Amino acid sequence: MDNASFKPAPEWQVSQWFNSDCPLTLGDLRGRIIVLHAFQMLCPGCVQAGIPQAQRIARTFDPAQVAVIGLHTVFEHHDAMAPNTLAAFIHEYRLTFPIGVDRASSSGPIPQTMAAYALQGTPSLILIDHRGRLRKQTLGAEDDMRVGADIALLLGEMR
Amino acid sequence: MDNASFKPAPEWQVSQWFNSDCPLTLGDLRGRIIVLHAFQMLCPGCVQAGIPQAQRIARTFDPAQVAVIGLHTVFEHHDAMAPNTLAAFIHEYRLTFPIGVDRASSSGPIPQTMAAYALQGTPSLILIDHRGRLRKQTLGAEDDMRVGADIALLLGEMR
Amino acid sequence: MDNASFKPAPEWQVSQWFNSDCPLTLGDLRGRIIVLHAFQMLCPGCVQAGIPQAQRIARTFDPAQVAVIGLHTVFEHHDAMAPNTLAAFIHEYRLTFPIGVDRASSSGPIPQTMAAYALQGTPSLILIDHRGRLRKQTLGAEDDMRVGADIALLLGEMR
Amino acid sequence: MDNASFKPAPEWQVSQWFNSDCPLTLGDLRGRIIVLHAFQMLCPGCVQAGIPQAQRIARTFDPAQVAVIGLHTVFEHHDAMAPNTLAAFIHEYRLTFPIGVDRASSSGPIPQTMAAYALQGTPSLILIDHRGRLRKQTLGAEDDMRVGADIALLLGEMR
Repeated sequence: MDNASFKPAPEWQVSQWFNSDCPLTLGDLRGRIIVLHAFQMLCPGCVQAGIPQAQRIARTFDPAQVAVIGLHTVFEHHDAMAPNTLAAFIHEYRLTFPIGVDRASSSGPIPQTMAAYALQGTPSLILIDHRGRLRKQTLGAEDDMRVGADIALLLGEMR
Repeated sequence: MDNASFKPAPEWQVSQWFNSDCPLTLGDLRGRIIVLHAFQMLCPGCVQAGIPQAQRIARTFDPAQVAVIGLHTVFEHHDAMAPNTLAAFIHEYRLTFPIGVDRASSSGPIPQTMAAYALQGTPSLILIDHRGRLRKQTLGAEDDMRVGADIALLLGEMR
Repeated sequence: MDNASFKPAPEWQVSQWFNSDCPLTLGDLRGRIIVLHAFQMLCPGCVQAGIPQAQRIARTFDPAQVAVIGLHTVFEHHDAMAPNTLAAFIHEYRLTFPIGVDRASSSGPIPQTMAAYALQGTPSLILIDHRGRLRKQTLGAEDDMRVGADIALLLGEMR
Repeated sequence: MDNASFKPAPEWQVSQWFNSDCPLTLGDLRGRIIVLHAFQMLCPGCVQAGIPQAQRIARTFDPAQVAVIGLHTVFEHHDAMAPNTLAAFIHEYRLTFPIGVDRASSSGPIPQTMAAYALQGTPSLILIDHRGRLRKQTLGAEDDMRVGADIALLLGEMR
């Protein structure tokens, strides 16, 4: 594998943060593996599989090495998933990792970060290496063993 | 068991119906067992256990004998669970049984039907017999075998 | 439903009992619903689904009304599933309901009770009503709600 | 981490192999990560959690890099878990990775490999790196994400 061919991950565009005192950027997290979990709070596959997996990732790995970041990428039912509703969802589901609201587009239903990554839907899991490069992007739920291995392979590159 | 001692189930108070062309009353369903499933769309126990069980009840029993009715009993995060958000939830989770929005109280956070039944939280499962009497009321998830048996015992009384 | 058309359940033929001080017959259990769970200890579907469901039945219903009986119907790998191996299996899986070893046939691999009921494989679940009549016979795992309802419908006939 | 401190994994002592045309040794597998799964066929935790996880490991990783080996470490109910019974178990559970029968001890119930590794029970999972060194040994089921990560961290050392 020619590592030189990996592209820098696009910066996320976030209009509001939860579970973080200040806005976060890719640069702030440089040096760590970033697990970006894109979800919608009314997406059954996110609630049943994606979000619990993101919580398991946050519990399994050392946060000094692996940063789990949620991204609320609303592309349908926009009125139904406004930030005040998301706040109640985060509270009820006891989510503790930082979650950003993907910034709405002025020209269509797809929010800006979702468009920049060309995500096809939710849940999507994105892995960014410690040098800020996009390494993996998956639509739908992958099994825990594969995800754990993929994160650890990136950790191995940090040594 | 002295059946004469069972009390009539209180009428529900509903401000809006989904999955039903017209408002439903207890009287409309007289002659059938009624399974009333009280939930909140942002309650994790409802989404993970209560609502899937209500769907299994609706699939397992003949709707001419057992009517499954959802009741959205919002007692917290009222702004986050408005009817437009519930509509998107019902669409995304593919719920097909009738669902009523429990009518808000003018004097506190507990909606009217929830108060009339003295429900302690969500999810709650309520069984009403074919003569309109309240027969069982449970907070939290019971296992499927017990629930299936309880419904069938009421069916046995109809013969 | 014309109850008169139900046939008496065939008597089981058992060469050895576990979890019972004495041999059991259908007649001994008359007046109760009998849940007969036919299994093989090396059948994955029995271990993963059938046997745990039999244990849930035994926990859910009053043993004075519903008797759960296991039947070890070995029709393949006979040498591998001898009674001493079954004894260890029952110990390890903490099974407490009575279990009979279906009596081997002198003429082929199918044991005698399995043949009398014309069972097609394992796991199989058989329901016998309080009057000793065969009411239901299912190959493979049914869901708990359906099984709980079927047992309760037979209980309703006892009143 | 001072890799020099890891000790060589003890050689296994096997009296019979299944799913392998010839006996296997640690040396035969040098250059690959070895996942050694110690189990007993009548151990519920092995059947429900350990063995399915070993199968997922075998499916998730490239067999040219990760070798999954089963070890039948019978330390109780010896008569009930003889090799002919194990053969039927392997057939029924569709296990395809090589499985060795841990050689019985002449002096007690604990078989020889189990004693050499000082295993405390079943299921146990043992990870051996590509240089034949013992890297991890766990009693009971660990979650898939942790196991996947641990294997991948060893893979990262091979580069």
